[in-house]
Amino acid sequence: MNEFALIDRFFNRGAQDPAVRTGIGDDGAVVVPSPGCDLVVAVDMLVEGRHFLAAAAPVTLGHKTLAVNLSDMAAMGARPRWALLALALPDCDEHWLADFTRGLFTLADRFDVTLIGGDTTRGPRNFCLTIVGEVPAGAALTRAGARPGDDIYVSGSLGDAALALAVLEGRAALGAADFALARARLDTPEPRVALGERLRGVATAAIDISDGLTGDLQHILDRSGMGATIDVALIPRSAPLAALCERAGRDLALACLLAGGDDYELCFMAAPTSRDVVAAIARDLDVPLTRIGCVSTGSGLVVRDERGAPLATLPRSFDHFS
Amino acid sequence: MNEFALIDRFFNRGAQDPAVRTGIGDDGAVVVPSPGCDLVVAVDMLVEGRHFLAAAAPVTLGHKTLAVNLSDMAAMGARPRWALLALALPDCDEHWLADFTRGLFTLADRFDVTLIGGDTTRGPRNFCLTIVGEVPAGAALTRAGARPGDDIYVSGSLGDAALALAVLEGRAALGAADFALARARLDTPEPRVALGERLRGVATAAIDISDGLTGDLQHILDRSGMGATIDVALIPRSAPLAALCERAGRDLALACLLAGGDDYELCFMAAPTSRDVVAAIARDLDVPLTRIGCVSTGSGLVVRDERGAPLATLPRSFDHFS
Repeated sequence: MNEFALIDRFFNRGAQDPAVRTGIGDDGAVVVPSPGCDLVVAVDMLVEGRHFLAAAAPVTLGHKTLAVNLSDMAAMGARPRWALLALALPDCDEHWLADFTRGLFTLADRFDVTLIGGDTTRGPRNFCLTIVGEVPAGAALTRAGARPGDDIYVSGSLGDAALALAVLEGRAALGAADFALARARLDTPEPRVALGERLRGVATAAIDISDGLTGDLQHILDRSGMGATIDVALIPRSAPLAALCERAGRDLALACLLAGGDDYELCFMAAPTSRDVVAAIARDLDVPLTRIGCVSTGSGLVVRDERGAPLATLPRSFDHFS
Repeated sequence: MNEFALIDRFFNRGAQDPAVRTGIGDDGAVVVPSPGCDLVVAVDMLVEGRHFLAAAAPVTLGHKTLAVNLSDMAAMGARPRWALLALALPDCDEHWLADFTRGLFTLADRFDVTLIGGDTTRGPRNFCLTIVGEVPAGAALTRAGARPGDDIYVSGSLGDAALALAVLEGRAALGAADFALARARLDTPEPRVALGERLRGVATAAIDISDGLTGDLQHILDRSGMGATIDVALIPRSAPLAALCERAGRDLALACLLAGGDDYELCFMAAPTSRDVVAAIARDLDVPLTRIGCVSTGSGLVVRDERGAPLATLPRSFDHFS
């Protein structure tokens, strides 16, 4: 199968979106943006051996390749619209491609995202997905708007993806049922797109937690010129992680909660006057939104342990070049 | 240097473009599209060992990474506006990054393109650039509009990039001055952006020649449901390639002209009634635009040799998976 047959067979499903004038199969894709909207564009590159293991199931890789970008749209409060996928593959394995695209398109269809273009080449396995979304003009959430006194929230629960990775790497043990749940968080994260859209005009700043809570929260503080205090005891966690905290695994549990990446929950700030609105959003979407601390003037992030004492050192977030 | 310091130092030059609300340093970039325009989006992935050699000069890699995408915008008749760069690097080599970004930004500045985002990760060297351009609504050039009787044009001259590669691979020899010129075509291709914009409303179809003339022309014919005849004798070529045709190197010269990729010239169609307009564009832009054949009903591409006889076999264009 040559490159173009491969694209036609696995990626080109024809245009379903009336805003797509020209989709896959030209030098560029042509789309009609919605009047009165800003564009939000993000790209993520996933590399074998860094972001996923060679043995990872292709259907979950297809899901995750898109999910991490949808999560960026969620963090910006944007509605995802169109995606382009560049991928390097060591060979043309049709079974692999069928599974990968099944994972990708199943998620794309759920969020009404149309694949409009891409690039296919031979090389060490690498997936690079570009997502284009829309948001009403001026309404995008950014990292720069946190204000003193704002509440700090996280969605869902944190640390399960990192816990699953710890089990896979032999650094922790879990029962089969708990491991299956944690592993699903790692392999097939659920992007918080609906939450992001609802947070427009409510959140003062937002980020998705891909590298770990403290590191990602620090990005908001840096960009907003603020400090913050959060409480470990308030960070929402699954039952297995809660149990780990109580037992010998406290260090690991703290690392998962504070520095575990790959959960793709949102961390956001909102004024205390918005508490009722935030609670209503949580009810409407059936997503836990938990207040874990608050923003302050100055700089620096204080993380208080269960007794209220500041942690002297924080577990390190992921950094590709440190 | 960590990942974020690297991005700040080498890629984040602050916002210069008033249409950029949020640039590098958030979960996504936010831009304001121009009213009345369609968006044109393209992505290309360049892999070490496939698209460039490990020893390639980083400044030319920076140029080429952007140039191939600008060329896609040219083929669509779009004005390039914003770029996102995802890159995988085996290490954080500051000299390499300084040179690479110099090549990238020098070209970006010439075309008023703003880098608005990206992703940086460790891995086998891989550059994936996404370009977002704009074109007046409905005016994008595509591969689908060629009509029977249309003239077929190519810009500039073809084959020099492939000739340079042949010399680098020991399959041909050139004098130093000729090699330097050919190599510049290979390393630092000049995207035909101004030409693409001028061809709006004039060209019925267009493509950039990245994989080779016959293969790329065939894409237009496939999408337009047409056939075509072109003449080898009419294909514009540099003096060294012309000399090669006359000497023992005729097979190589034909391969360079018909199947040599990487020249990034445009191939386009226009009605015979547009000949004066095309000639005026060529004059205005000081770019040779040469008529090499014409479109016909049916399917199939006939390439005639210097005596008017159809070539029985065509040199093969590049295909990553054949």
